[in-house]
Amino acid sequence: MKIVALAGGVGGAKLAHGLAQILASEDLTVIVNTGDDFEHLGMYISPDLDTVCYTLAGLANPETGWGRINETWNTIANIEKLGGPNWFRLGDQDIATHLERTRRMKAGQSLSQITKDFCAAWGINHTVLPMSDSPVRTMVDTDEGELAFQEYFVHRHCEPRVKGFRFEGVDSAEPVIGAREAIESAEAIVICPSNPWVSVDPIFQILSPALIQKGEGKKVIAVSPIIGGQAVKGPAAKMYTELGIEPSALAVAEHYRNLLCGFVLDNVDRQLSDKIETKTLVTNTLMNNSSDRARLATDVLNFVRSL
Amino acid sequence: MKIVALAGGVGGAKLAHGLAQILASEDLTVIVNTGDDFEHLGMYISPDLDTVCYTLAGLANPETGWGRINETWNTIANIEKLGGPNWFRLGDQDIATHLERTRRMKAGQSLSQITKDFCAAWGINHTVLPMSDSPVRTMVDTDEGELAFQEYFVHRHCEPRVKGFRFEGVDSAEPVIGAREAIESAEAIVICPSNPWVSVDPIFQILSPALIQKGEGKKVIAVSPIIGGQAVKGPAAKMYTELGIEPSALAVAEHYRNLLCGFVLDNVDRQLSDKIETKTLVTNTLMNNSSDRARLATDVLNFVRSL
Repeated sequence: MKIVALAGGVGGAKLAHGLAQILASEDLTVIVNTGDDFEHLGMYISPDLDTVCYTLAGLANPETGWGRINETWNTIANIEKLGGPNWFRLGDQDIATHLERTRRMKAGQSLSQITKDFCAAWGINHTVLPMSDSPVRTMVDTDEGELAFQEYFVHRHCEPRVKGFRFEGVDSAEPVIGAREAIESAEAIVICPSNPWVSVDPIFQILSPALIQKGEGKKVIAVSPIIGGQAVKGPAAKMYTELGIEPSALAVAEHYRNLLCGFVLDNVDRQLSDKIETKTLVTNTLMNNSSDRARLATDVLNFVRSL
Repeated sequence: MKIVALAGGVGGAKLAHGLAQILASEDLTVIVNTGDDFEHLGMYISPDLDTVCYTLAGLANPETGWGRINETWNTIANIEKLGGPNWFRLGDQDIATHLERTRRMKAGQSLSQITKDFCAAWGINHTVLPMSDSPVRTMVDTDEGELAFQEYFVHRHCEPRVKGFRFEGVDSAEPVIGAREAIESAEAIVICPSNPWVSVDPIFQILSPALIQKGEGKKVIAVSPIIGGQAVKGPAAKMYTELGIEPSALAVAEHYRNLLCGFVLDNVDRQLSDKIETKTLVTNTLMNNSSDRARLATDVLNFVRSL
């Protein structure tokens, strides 16, 4: 069964890893949000792409969800001593990724080609694609004005109240080469449990709803990133609240309403199942370890088959 | 006694450190070659400036002569895994210097301002100046064509035969602010035991011989980087040979002939002393440790006083 997974950072990376444990390498394509990408200290940083790749490669830090396992912090500690910016935590191994990616981009390589080469170097057998080779930048409209995503997310700890989102560059950005083909040949699109507003929406904007609409023989299912009204990680629930929507699995299902033919929500949200206008799978969606990821992926794939 | 020291990398840094152990902070200005500077992995790297600063700050690696003590190598090891360039060895702490310097330069700060700030952060009390805030690039003419300095020096291990040197940008480069004033108020200019061809000549070209000529009340003395026909470190002796000159302290003295009013050479070269057309000091010029540096600096300062 060929699957395309749409993923942002930590939650998306975990389910992608679950799917990768089950599906053959040619049967899984992970398309990753790049709206969070930014330049910092002269380096091109692609946080979601790195989280997905590190997770698939077994290189991710299991405690933070971002960055590398067995990381050292000597560069950032010394940048700090020199009075440089330390708000974006960069480990020494992680910096290698950014420096080499930046070097290659300046030499004219595309983000997707670089990602392909890095995946090969890291022993990742499944296909990982950035959503686009063109720059798209998620801008967060807040009560303190518009902030670039990392400024809002990391530097300001998501403190400013959210009023909306804008994806700069999205109109002129083309989907990455291979995305269309992967979607066309896939049996299902799995929207991973990533932030609907800032991780999944940018991917939708790029791939265009037409490509992933139901009713054309394509099954689109989503896994809720909201469990018991809370995001497992990140500001998704806070964003819903600030946008005047009660955060819940139901709210997520309604976010994707026009696309879905199936929705996966956690056991703790079982009572919401009846209110959701598409078929649902109620299961344990928390992924605390590698076998949790594989179990949820198995549940998701069985659900897809049942649709 | 106010002193201006002209320095390249390792040898120059060691004598500068000796002088710094003796002279008050307001009495020593070290003007450093920047012809070796280059961009690598998107970072602005200034090898001689860093070697001088790390040495003065007690942060230098005493075994290599370049880079930081207690260094780790996690970034470069991971760049290597990704197929990136590993020929220029960058430690994790050292990378902080390059990243933060590059960030500041892109923000419009001058190399000299950045150096001043970094010196303050590293606890360096004496003044360290890059020779210019304008880019000057040492190009090495070889039997394999012209090579950028680091390409020749590090990547090619000084293997191509040298035919000459060119200092790109030198005609339009101004001396750094403060250099002229330091030279005017100095009792003596000490040319440190650095490579005459590629470390000291670029500084001369920038500061212009007029500023440091003898006969205007300014004492200029040099310490030979060649001991017993060999360079303590680096390709100086090889360069002399390839340019058709027998490498020796005598050759160095002749290199600086029009400038010098005093020349310091090693005990092992005592027999050359008579052939040198300026006053000489014969002493132990090898600097194996911190107290060697202070001892040679004391000898040099006493020699200056005697002239």
